[in-house]
Amino acid sequence: MIKLENGWTTTPQGFEAGAAMAGVKKEGRYDVSVIYSSVPAACGAVFTQNKFCAAPVLLDREVNKGAYAQAIVANSGCANACTGVKGYEDAVAMQAKTAELLGIEPQAVFVCSTGVIGAFMPMERINKGIEEAIDVMDENGGEIAAMGIQTTDTVIKHIAYEGEIGGKKVRFGGIAKGSGMIHPNMATMLTFITTDAAIAPDVLKRAVKKAADLSFNMVVVDGDTSTNDSMIVLANGMAENEIIVSEDHPDYPAFFEMLLACAKDLAKKIAYDGEGATKFLEVKVVGAKDFADAKKAAMAIAKSPLVKTAIFGEDANWGRITCAAGYSGADLDPEKASLTMGGVRLFENGLNNNVADEIMEPIMAQKEISLVMDLAVGEAEATVWTCDFSYDYVKINGDYRT
Amino acid sequence: MIKLENGWTTTPQGFEAGAAMAGVKKEGRYDVSVIYSSVPAACGAVFTQNKFCAAPVLLDREVNKGAYAQAIVANSGCANACTGVKGYEDAVAMQAKTAELLGIEPQAVFVCSTGVIGAFMPMERINKGIEEAIDVMDENGGEIAAMGIQTTDTVIKHIAYEGEIGGKKVRFGGIAKGSGMIHPNMATMLTFITTDAAIAPDVLKRAVKKAADLSFNMVVVDGDTSTNDSMIVLANGMAENEIIVSEDHPDYPAFFEMLLACAKDLAKKIAYDGEGATKFLEVKVVGAKDFADAKKAAMAIAKSPLVKTAIFGEDANWGRITCAAGYSGADLDPEKASLTMGGVRLFENGLNNNVADEIMEPIMAQKEISLVMDLAVGEAEATVWTCDFSYDYVKINGDYRT
Repeated sequence: MIKLENGWTTTPQGFEAGAAMAGVKKEGRYDVSVIYSSVPAACGAVFTQNKFCAAPVLLDREVNKGAYAQAIVANSGCANACTGVKGYEDAVAMQAKTAELLGIEPQAVFVCSTGVIGAFMPMERINKGIEEAIDVMDENGGEIAAMGIQTTDTVIKHIAYEGEIGGKKVRFGGIAKGSGMIHPNMATMLTFITTDAAIAPDVLKRAVKKAADLSFNMVVVDGDTSTNDSMIVLANGMAENEIIVSEDHPDYPAFFEMLLACAKDLAKKIAYDGEGATKFLEVKVVGAKDFADAKKAAMAIAKSPLVKTAIFGEDANWGRITCAAGYSGADLDPEKASLTMGGVRLFENGLNNNVADEIMEPIMAQKEISLVMDLAVGEAEATVWTCDFSYDYVKINGDYRT
Repeated sequence: MIKLENGWTTTPQGFEAGAAMAGVKKEGRYDVSVIYSSVPAACGAVFTQNKFCAAPVLLDREVNKGAYAQAIVANSGCANACTGVKGYEDAVAMQAKTAELLGIEPQAVFVCSTGVIGAFMPMERINKGIEEAIDVMDENGGEIAAMGIQTTDTVIKHIAYEGEIGGKKVRFGGIAKGSGMIHPNMATMLTFITTDAAIAPDVLKRAVKKAADLSFNMVVVDGDTSTNDSMIVLANGMAENEIIVSEDHPDYPAFFEMLLACAKDLAKKIAYDGEGATKFLEVKVVGAKDFADAKKAAMAIAKSPLVKTAIFGEDANWGRITCAAGYSGADLDPEKASLTMGGVRLFENGLNNNVADEIMEPIMAQKEISLVMDLAVGEAEATVWTCDFSYDYVKINGDYRT
């Protein structure tokens, strides 16, 4: 498979997209997006576990019970969360409006919102935005549709892959938004992935769950899991490969590989674009008892404000990293554990390796930093992606609403 | 009981303390402290759960298996954590040196260290410090002993209470250090509480555990649980009250009330002095299914960087607070939950109460802010104390070692 750097959700066959500047956010910014498949597509989605989940998430859980869907309508600027019955009615109205204009059934339309919590949707603007987005919708609309779901994002996150499945050329395209409230169990994160590969809906649903667990659920910016997080995948089958009817089908591995590649790339882009981030940090934990323990330790390290501020300060402060592993609850052998940063072993057999600051300085000055913590009790491993914690994180979040 | 604002661990009868400037920290700062009871004292202690716990914690767990102890030796500047066998030998040497100079058994001496992780103890300086601290030790040494355990603390945390137990005047005195790595299960936190009340060692040990759970384990600054956290209580019985031999003894409630008051006061002082803190936040969760759920929700709110930066920005951003409760895992009724801040109901029955910014401005401008989140599913409650997240937190922790 090859990565298509300029790919979008419109890169696979049969997908169109459009967006409008509806005035939900500041003027001059896209804030309503529509993605559409010209034929019904197998759908699979995963959503936030937050108990105050947003109205559109409640609605989308119903849509996802169906086998096929054909469109996604999304807005930024207003999260439609903590909005009660009226919020739910507004999400239903967005769904109905989109379905009507596209000439499809309402239950074939996913609805997503992201932005401020607790405000009601400006439905007049939203409806006008849906009309405009559908008016301009075409095969080149991938980029503006991606722009329409941004909030505090500083870069547009998108990716596409092209490969072969069962002798047919297939493509996957994805977009994502999210930079704050990023945490496992899907944070203020919207991800839409489209593909023209053919796959049975039940197989797709399981593949999406598995891909999310290995990608978006391994990213943490601040540990806050939002009300709106959604990952939605549409597979419309227009590549005409033999339909993948089970995980045992010979083409399933190729399908999953491309889906996971899209999801991982987008997940890493979210960590790169963490609010106020100046550095990207890959935390790999090895030698764990099991995957759950490896993830627990990696997450504790990646979430620690002390670790994240040290990375910001370009300080190879391994004590804070081992300390976080120590309180994570993961099994470890304190007398055999070790830690490397940028390939340099800072901590070995439970002891300081006394690496000179001069050796670590150029490593810590890099934009991308990786560390490997060995818990020394087993064979399991897990990798988590995060970013540092800077003055700008405080600035962005201490002053978000004004 | 009455609070003695100028109280220390030397306020109860029979306790002395001293400290020395041994050069473990920067010159001119106290960094080795000794607290001593002229008679053996019932002892009770709780320690960090971190798997990379420091050498002195390993040693103190042994001391705490005994019924009585008579001294605490503590240093700041070096945590003696991640220091392996040599670190343990150093802790044993500190214990032996202190015991020898005081003429008591080594197993009657608790050893505590706090400071940088991964460095070996400068034992020559430490030994000289112990000698000097014991040389100057007297009934007025409480304040310098408190100074000797500070690291990034900006204020000296101390408290004392005087009350009556069984017709006798009793006193409790406590000191604490800690401002970063503050989190339940005891963070970079040292607390020493002394009392002249008489209590059986087994009853004291249980009381200390219970008091810690309701005080220090309800404080969070950054979510990092350190390698060294210790709370040690010595009760020497010199007040000559009838010894409290069980929780059913009529004087137990009075004893526990004073112990808890000391512990809570010190815990709140730690939150007030959180690294870079500009505001103190009390998070009370009510209407929870049980205490564990109430604590879970309160902790999620208190740990959320998004909530903490909003408090710093004086922004009554209730959406982030309800969002944190929502992802905490605690049971809640999203359609009945409510939230008040500074007594103003911002969120009611799952909906925005549309409180005007003008009403919240003076509340958010205060130094102390309290919020009450009602989960609306039960009767249990829990209160957690924390502070805001400021530019200075990033500054202090991005630049700690230089």
